[in-house]
Amino acid sequence: MNSANLIISGRYLLAEAGQAAFENYGIAIAGDTIAAVAPTDELRARYPKARHLHTDNGLVMPGLVNAHTHAAMSLFRGLADDLPLMTWLHDHIFPAEQRLTGEMVYWGTLLSCAEMIRSGTTSFCDMYLFARDVARAADAAGMRAWLGEVFFDFPSPSHGDEAAGLVYLDEMFDEYREHPRIRVTVNPHSVYTCAPDLLTRLFAVAGREQALYHIHLSETVSEVATCRERYGLTPVAHLEHLGLLAANVHAAHCVQLTKDEIALMAERRVGIAHCLQSNLKLASGIAPTPRLLAANAKVALGTDGSASNNDVDMFSEMTSVALTHKGIHLDPTILPAATVLAMATKGGARALNAEAAIGSLHAGKRADCIVVDLSASRLTPLYNLSSQLVYAAQGDDVRHTIIGGQLVMRDRKILSFDEDEAKAKVREFARLIHVGR
Amino acid sequence: MNSANLIISGRYLLAEAGQAAFENYGIAIAGDTIAAVAPTDELRARYPKARHLHTDNGLVMPGLVNAHTHAAMSLFRGLADDLPLMTWLHDHIFPAEQRLTGEMVYWGTLLSCAEMIRSGTTSFCDMYLFARDVARAADAAGMRAWLGEVFFDFPSPSHGDEAAGLVYLDEMFDEYREHPRIRVTVNPHSVYTCAPDLLTRLFAVAGREQALYHIHLSETVSEVATCRERYGLTPVAHLEHLGLLAANVHAAHCVQLTKDEIALMAERRVGIAHCLQSNLKLASGIAPTPRLLAANAKVALGTDGSASNNDVDMFSEMTSVALTHKGIHLDPTILPAATVLAMATKGGARALNAEAAIGSLHAGKRADCIVVDLSASRLTPLYNLSSQLVYAAQGDDVRHTIIGGQLVMRDRKILSFDEDEAKAKVREFARLIHVGR
Repeated sequence: MNSANLIISGRYLLAEAGQAAFENYGIAIAGDTIAAVAPTDELRARYPKARHLHTDNGLVMPGLVNAHTHAAMSLFRGLADDLPLMTWLHDHIFPAEQRLTGEMVYWGTLLSCAEMIRSGTTSFCDMYLFARDVARAADAAGMRAWLGEVFFDFPSPSHGDEAAGLVYLDEMFDEYREHPRIRVTVNPHSVYTCAPDLLTRLFAVAGREQALYHIHLSETVSEVATCRERYGLTPVAHLEHLGLLAANVHAAHCVQLTKDEIALMAERRVGIAHCLQSNLKLASGIAPTPRLLAANAKVALGTDGSASNNDVDMFSEMTSVALTHKGIHLDPTILPAATVLAMATKGGARALNAEAAIGSLHAGKRADCIVVDLSASRLTPLYNLSSQLVYAAQGDDVRHTIIGGQLVMRDRKILSFDEDEAKAKVREFARLIHVGR
Repeated sequence: MNSANLIISGRYLLAEAGQAAFENYGIAIAGDTIAAVAPTDELRARYPKARHLHTDNGLVMPGLVNAHTHAAMSLFRGLADDLPLMTWLHDHIFPAEQRLTGEMVYWGTLLSCAEMIRSGTTSFCDMYLFARDVARAADAAGMRAWLGEVFFDFPSPSHGDEAAGLVYLDEMFDEYREHPRIRVTVNPHSVYTCAPDLLTRLFAVAGREQALYHIHLSETVSEVATCRERYGLTPVAHLEHLGLLAANVHAAHCVQLTKDEIALMAERRVGIAHCLQSNLKLASGIAPTPRLLAANAKVALGTDGSASNNDVDMFSEMTSVALTHKGIHLDPTILPAATVLAMATKGGARALNAEAAIGSLHAGKRADCIVVDLSASRLTPLYNLSSQLVYAAQGDDVRHTIIGGQLVMRDRKILSFDEDEAKAKVREFARLIHVGR
């Protein structure tokens, strides 16, 4: 490529998790695409007219992929914690969601976008109500997103009945078909809230649109019990029986899996979003992530929503994942830092079937990258980059965030939208939510 | 009290974990002591000459207590991760420690002090080699610390043989007996590295000096097995048999405890430092913290050293503790946020037998407090302070840190020492450590 308009460089560049880092390297960006990955001097010589953003003690690396969230749930952060799952859901979250509006979802999503951009996430995969407002916020934030309207058997506070929901979804597909960063997905909530017919009808829509089919799957023991009771099958077996396990399926949680189901999920190329912090907080258990990886399943990491985490910080998620599995399995070699970093970057890309576009920094891919400032005391000294990123770094160490070639955060200041406005709006809505309880 | 030289105030004040917060409150400080806790207006009227540091969207709360660390081990952060415990210890940490000097320990400790001050820790309890240099660093940093020279049966890279170690320790007691912030402790490393005679001799020193007896206890299955093999008793039973379980004993880890031992630890009033992140990372297992609390044992939280964590951030430790036990016990109501916050503040004070001085903000106590800025996107909106602090806040949200009435960090700038110098020194030493491998 002969033109590049932006060079991002640092002391180190990690093009792909698990590989060695290069010193004094950078990437050159043409539009929304990586034109070259090369020594900084070489890039400067090759593209003398490009704007150059260099960070002395910086590490240029792929942006993180948050493979499962409900971004707007920042509205409910800390509203109801430390409660039994059903009390939490039925007495607090569902009633609060009954009072949601598109405006609230827009601002709640935008607030989560601020948090994600600040903590190095460049792509997220969302499932929520009022998905057009989610899309509007992701667009305004300049983030890359897979998102869609959630479906269940009962009427939605957002779109009403199923027929109206399908119209809403069709309109979203039409609106975003050509969008450079937003992909509309088809989102049945789960096997316990969607009847087989609805699951099947939605799968057909996903097939027609070549879209991701994003579903909560095997999250809890009670989900498995309910599914067995209704259909005589586990959730995974139920989907398999319906012919709904395929490479475009993206399943969140997958905590409760049998040995055979692990093999099946890998064989069917189903994407899996491991949401450890949320699963711990809601006491759902711990997914068999090491075994899924051993089976070569497509495993990504997700934060889930801020009502059950209580943030959307992938650095904190990486730390938890790397630490917890070691302690549970009594094996300190399980999920080494580089493996966890891979799940949070190219693993996310793979689970979203977007490996050709994101997840690593190579010429021809989208220019989604972050610059981590390695100067903090907590990042001193530096022996091993992967260890440092997974065990010691925090979201706040991210200094710049670039998505599709656009600088959306520079020197910790968000450039794509007014973060203070999002905070103020969410504080206003929170007063309504709180009073309404 | 009629004089106060400093008022610290904010939007909220949380005097003690588990209690309700006050709005528009502050504390007045006279020297190193809290003179009053009252509405800010009242404090201003009562102490018109006092300097006033107000934070608009700030929460004034007790400083955190890191009840077990090896601060100087910041020198080895990320040097060797994701390895079996014995490989980590024998092939990496012990050889690296053979090359330590007092200077290295001083700067390594100072770097950890920077991290602790930045993340809201005002007191720490340390065990390491070259303890006089640890003390020198804690003093320079303006931190409150319990610290002492570690003992084991073999010669120490720091003090040499036991006799020389006891002289070294005596000199430390003499030097710090009147120090306002530093308490010297007696530190046998563990039951598997200290013979019964050494344990008993050191216990007599602790008794004579009315000092804390700080020991690693029941950290791993292999420690328990070794102790059983040698003495026919578990580590806890071994100490009990030797008459060494008492209220001045401060035991780190306590991962492997039987039901009877939990009751015994509570009955003997032994302080316990729960170091979850380290225990997870080294795959030692998970301490029975909820049962220890139910037994009313003195349970605090600690980060352990940065070679096995890899930081000394108590906010991150609180998050892990609150999340992990829920997931392990499949009970989302276990260790609610306020309980975890209590362990990190007044629990730490209680374990260190320092409840009269620190752990909460009441008139007459030492003025150890932090101001958390609640403005960040990740802390928006605010429904519940404890939830916000434990699940969503990060160390970086701490804006000011005050220890013994001294402002050691203001607006994220450390005032008590040159943080950049500590980073530069540790980077230098790291090159030596790395090359020496």
